[in-house]
Amino acid sequence: MKPLAVVCVSGGMDSCVTAALARERFRLAFLHGNYGQRTEARELACFHALADHFGAEPRLVVDFSALHAIGGSSLTDRAIPVREGEPVAGVVPTSYVPFRNAHLLSAAASWAEVLGATAVFVGAVWEDSSGYPDCRPEFYAAFEKAIDLGTRDETRIAIETPVISLTKAQIVARGLALGVPFGSTWSCYQAEDVACGACESCVLRARGFAEAGAVDPLPQR
Amino acid sequence: MKPLAVVCVSGGMDSCVTAALARERFRLAFLHGNYGQRTEARELACFHALADHFGAEPRLVVDFSALHAIGGSSLTDRAIPVREGEPVAGVVPTSYVPFRNAHLLSAAASWAEVLGATAVFVGAVWEDSSGYPDCRPEFYAAFEKAIDLGTRDETRIAIETPVISLTKAQIVARGLALGVPFGSTWSCYQAEDVACGACESCVLRARGFAEAGAVDPLPQR
Repeated sequence: MKPLAVVCVSGGMDSCVTAALARERFRLAFLHGNYGQRTEARELACFHALADHFGAEPRLVVDFSALHAIGGSSLTDRAIPVREGEPVAGVVPTSYVPFRNAHLLSAAASWAEVLGATAVFVGAVWEDSSGYPDCRPEFYAAFEKAIDLGTRDETRIAIETPVISLTKAQIVARGLALGVPFGSTWSCYQAEDVACGACESCVLRARGFAEAGAVDPLPQR
Repeated sequence: MKPLAVVCVSGGMDSCVTAALARERFRLAFLHGNYGQRTEARELACFHALADHFGAEPRLVVDFSALHAIGGSSLTDRAIPVREGEPVAGVVPTSYVPFRNAHLLSAAASWAEVLGATAVFVGAVWEDSSGYPDCRPEFYAAFEKAIDLGTRDETRIAIETPVISLTKAQIVARGLALGVPFGSTWSCYQAEDVACGACESCVLRARGFAEAGAVDPLPQR
């Protein structure tokens, strides 16, 4: 029997492709975080659709109430507008949720330790992305060390970020090759019915499909 | 004006003394975690009493729903009995909550980044303790590095663990010298009215007061 991995699945295209890559070597436990983001209802529906598609059991939906209460991001504080257009190099956009991925990794590591899972997968993207500091490869290396030191001696959990150095176009291409259901993913930061087509996340997604020469099954406005 | 620090305050004696030490150099923001532990109601009352005592504002109470859902500890799963007596060297007790302190540190770091706080204080104790792996000094060093890499470049947050190498008796002595209200703390893992006197945490506390030649204002059964 394959070993077990916890996969952090937001419901976006990056975590969807990450799950498909994880499934090649692992049985899958799916973890989703609700941190009060604007589009959580749609993301959660995608999470469950993807878990069904990949046959992931168990599933855990975590309410990160701290991130909601702390705010400091356009995704969790509706008083801060969502930035539109392409990311600007060297500028952390307002959609950065302060240290969010540490909350996800902490939950994933706790769950992995109890389940006996040996890996945690995260669909972070660094080069071709919005420049969130908690998507840096070095952050994941440091966090893996913190997991190693902060859990039982016999616990061994690797953090795997298989799409971190890919472009969005490469992620689309990998996903198409693996037959992932991109129609069951959600990327838009601000709309839940039809993707806005204007926010950074929509712009990155649209460029990824265009550069991959593919058609996104989810139309943007 | 002094800089601001986020202090993780469980309501126990170690975090109480840690807050007193932090106050010497910082203004205080108090963070408390509810992770579904057996004695949360009493701990939360102590948290607010200590925040009043130390004049800590703002305060944030975080619901770590993941830790509650994940279980794997006698503190969060009532089907697992709380171990009684002195800790056994080299054995992680059932009261270990898997990777709990990473959840606390993640919340503290996110909050510190938004508040502009430059330090996070944690009352972890390593040598004279139950041997929880997430109380190791090396864990805090690794997590500090993860914070440095996973937050904005201009964010600088030091993790401070001023009682980590003290014995329980030394912590009692420091607290008495600083005039902390030990009567407004709670250590027992399983009772909320009168401390049981039997669980590891009660045993460590009783020994600390005895070795310091002091009387605990909170009687144990």
